[in-house]
Amino acid sequence: MAAFKKIAIFGVGLIGGSFALALKKSGAVGEVLGVGRRRETLLRAAELGIIDSHTEDVAQAVAGADLVLIAAPVAQTSALLQAIAPHLQADTVVTDAGSTKTDVVAAARAALGSKIHQFVPGHPIAGREQNGPEAALFDLYVGKKIILTALPENPAAAVDRVTDAWQRCGALIHHLTAEEHDAVFAAVSHLPHVLAYALVADIAARPDAARLFQYAASGFRDFTRIAGSSPEMWRDIALANRSALLGELDAYMAQLSQIRALLDQGDGPGLEKTFASAQAARQAWIAAIEAAEQARSFEQGGD
Amino acid sequence: MAAFKKIAIFGVGLIGGSFALALKKSGAVGEVLGVGRRRETLLRAAELGIIDSHTEDVAQAVAGADLVLIAAPVAQTSALLQAIAPHLQADTVVTDAGSTKTDVVAAARAALGSKIHQFVPGHPIAGREQNGPEAALFDLYVGKKIILTALPENPAAAVDRVTDAWQRCGALIHHLTAEEHDAVFAAVSHLPHVLAYALVADIAARPDAARLFQYAASGFRDFTRIAGSSPEMWRDIALANRSALLGELDAYMAQLSQIRALLDQGDGPGLEKTFASAQAARQAWIAAIEAAEQARSFEQGGD
Repeated sequence: MAAFKKIAIFGVGLIGGSFALALKKSGAVGEVLGVGRRRETLLRAAELGIIDSHTEDVAQAVAGADLVLIAAPVAQTSALLQAIAPHLQADTVVTDAGSTKTDVVAAARAALGSKIHQFVPGHPIAGREQNGPEAALFDLYVGKKIILTALPENPAAAVDRVTDAWQRCGALIHHLTAEEHDAVFAAVSHLPHVLAYALVADIAARPDAARLFQYAASGFRDFTRIAGSSPEMWRDIALANRSALLGELDAYMAQLSQIRALLDQGDGPGLEKTFASAQAARQAWIAAIEAAEQARSFEQGGD
Repeated sequence: MAAFKKIAIFGVGLIGGSFALALKKSGAVGEVLGVGRRRETLLRAAELGIIDSHTEDVAQAVAGADLVLIAAPVAQTSALLQAIAPHLQADTVVTDAGSTKTDVVAAARAALGSKIHQFVPGHPIAGREQNGPEAALFDLYVGKKIILTALPENPAAAVDRVTDAWQRCGALIHHLTAEEHDAVFAAVSHLPHVLAYALVADIAARPDAARLFQYAASGFRDFTRIAGSSPEMWRDIALANRSALLGELDAYMAQLSQIRALLDQGDGPGLEKTFASAQAARQAWIAAIEAAEQARSFEQGGD
């Protein structure tokens, strides 16, 4: 018998679709049911073999589900949890894939009330440029981190069920509190997105923008790649993680002001020291990533 | 007969070495002579077929050369021009490959005096992560931009000689004044490098840096790629282009302060508008790059 009799997925795009494909491939799931606002997306997901069936009826969607994954745009999470709450059976576990966690936890507490122990918040650190069911890949999560920000109310069995599903997708489970999660991602993800948007917006607004872009090269291209991301999604993330992101912006502007002062004073050794500390930290980070990748491929090869 | 009887190259690493390889492959040059401070680098360049001969004697290096390329680290440009000046024959043209131009022009005026008309400043917009003669590629410059910041004193024949050499490498010639060049590259290259260094330095200095780096993903990796660049080189570029870069830092910090205010006020539409203007500008830029690449490959195919 399959480990999961029925999984309901709200939002069958890149994130939800890849989760479904991975679990189906692993043979771990009896039925995958898709829920979404756009009928054509659900039909496409069914065509692609991502889901077995679909519905717009929330009660029907969650009835008898072992696991519910909310992978719709984060702005919908609160409304979806409210819609799910009255129909949520005692043996169902709900998780999500949102990029921020303290706001999701607050929304879940408000929506689920005494059923909050059934909600295990999560954030898969994986993505692609493309979106939608066509972009879904069965191996999107292989070797990728999934951060669970389990609640004090969660029984171990609920966390285990979510862990089991993601591990069957090939993912590596990490645990943080929601506050730790949001502080970390404000620094290493949300801030860089804002910085990249700011640079391109700054240049685009100049009278000589065309000439500036004409001479922008590969360094600029990589630096600004994340400024090609969805403005709606990043508006929502920025607002959801506002206080941590404000703190990061302030720390970054203080760092920039220091560099500006060094430059203004013509302090070559000071500039070089700052640049060298960054270069060394980045090289060490890249080396650690490569070592982890090698260790993983060695493990897999040894199976 | 070859278009160039003798070319002398000061600095036979990635930039100078690729220039030499491209010209040799095109059959346009009789002799390529390498000059450098490190004997092992010159020997390696000779082994790799980048240069035909080498010397540490500047007089011998420039004697009878049609063209001299200075492709050593920018901090050496002034000293090299001073060493070259007394030996510079009337029929030799000198060019360089430095990333900043107003400082190079000032150094050249000081070093060359009445021979300044023989110096045509240049900046190839091409690079790789690797350095040294081993990194040199005969096709590094194919389809890449070379910016010449010709001086009022340059006779057309001198500019033509430098243009001819770079075109034989497959490069596209662009003309700017030195001031225009430095303003453009402060915005699209020097500023992003400083911003990337600042982010990594900021994070590396935190007590929880290890955890932050642990969760940094591909967006962070691309954004900070240029923070892996040489601290010495970027110290020199920042100082050489100090006033333009200070202006860019100020404009950028003003843009960041605006975004910070929108975030602080919870102004979703304002944030989305800024992010969307950046996304649209970047998408248009990428589309223009791709169209230019297609047009170029069509032209080449039609030859």
